[in-house]
Amino acid sequence: MRRFGQVIGLHPDRYDEYVKAHAAVWPGVLAMISACNIRNYSIYAFGKDRLFAYFEYVGDDFTADMARMAADPETQRWWDWMMPMQDPVEGRAEGEWWMELPEVFHHD
Amino acid sequence: MRRFGQVIGLHPDRYDEYVKAHAAVWPGVLAMISACNIRNYSIYAFGKDRLFAYFEYVGDDFTADMARMAADPETQRWWDWMMPMQDPVEGRAEGEWWMELPEVFHHD
Repeated sequence: MRRFGQVIGLHPDRYDEYVKAHAAVWPGVLAMISACNIRNYSIYAFGKDRLFAYFEYVGDDFTADMARMAADPETQRWWDWMMPMQDPVEGRAEGEWWMELPEVFHHD
Repeated sequence: MRRFGQVIGLHPDRYDEYVKAHAAVWPGVLAMISACNIRNYSIYAFGKDRLFAYFEYVGDDFTADMARMAADPETQRWWDWMMPMQDPVEGRAEGEWWMELPEVFHHD
């Protein structure tokens, strides 16, 4: 299992819409998250302009699973709605949308 | 089980020291974390001035467990070292050091 911490910005004027959307994520989007071996996935808000995500990846080919997720039409429709609300942070790696953060501590 | 997401600032000039300390946290501090019903505890860095934490609380009295942790002499010595490196964020609740963040999404 591999743990991920990620950060992204959010346009504050879209905060309420983003929270409301995430209180009722489309079932097909959730099913694809599970099918792509993502578990225990949480998103937290810091103010109205910053999101922090934590999840656990239990598969053995993260790149392939993310490509599978990105090819799913319902996930694409969801992202077409979500991505304009988000504001990726400076300093993220090439190709990243959410920026992956270094883990500085873990205790089971 | 209750999940927590938290944020705090870090003085950038102490980043390297903070990371090094957390690569070798004192065994007594780790034992107290476990004894106080904290599980799956991760800390991530965003740049050198921001930390995000995620953990799971499996006990039934979080306030009492945190009081127990705060009363532990070795934990106090650890905090005496860590806290001057940290820079709590504006907007946290009264009595908070790390600010607890609202969860906007969770999927098991």
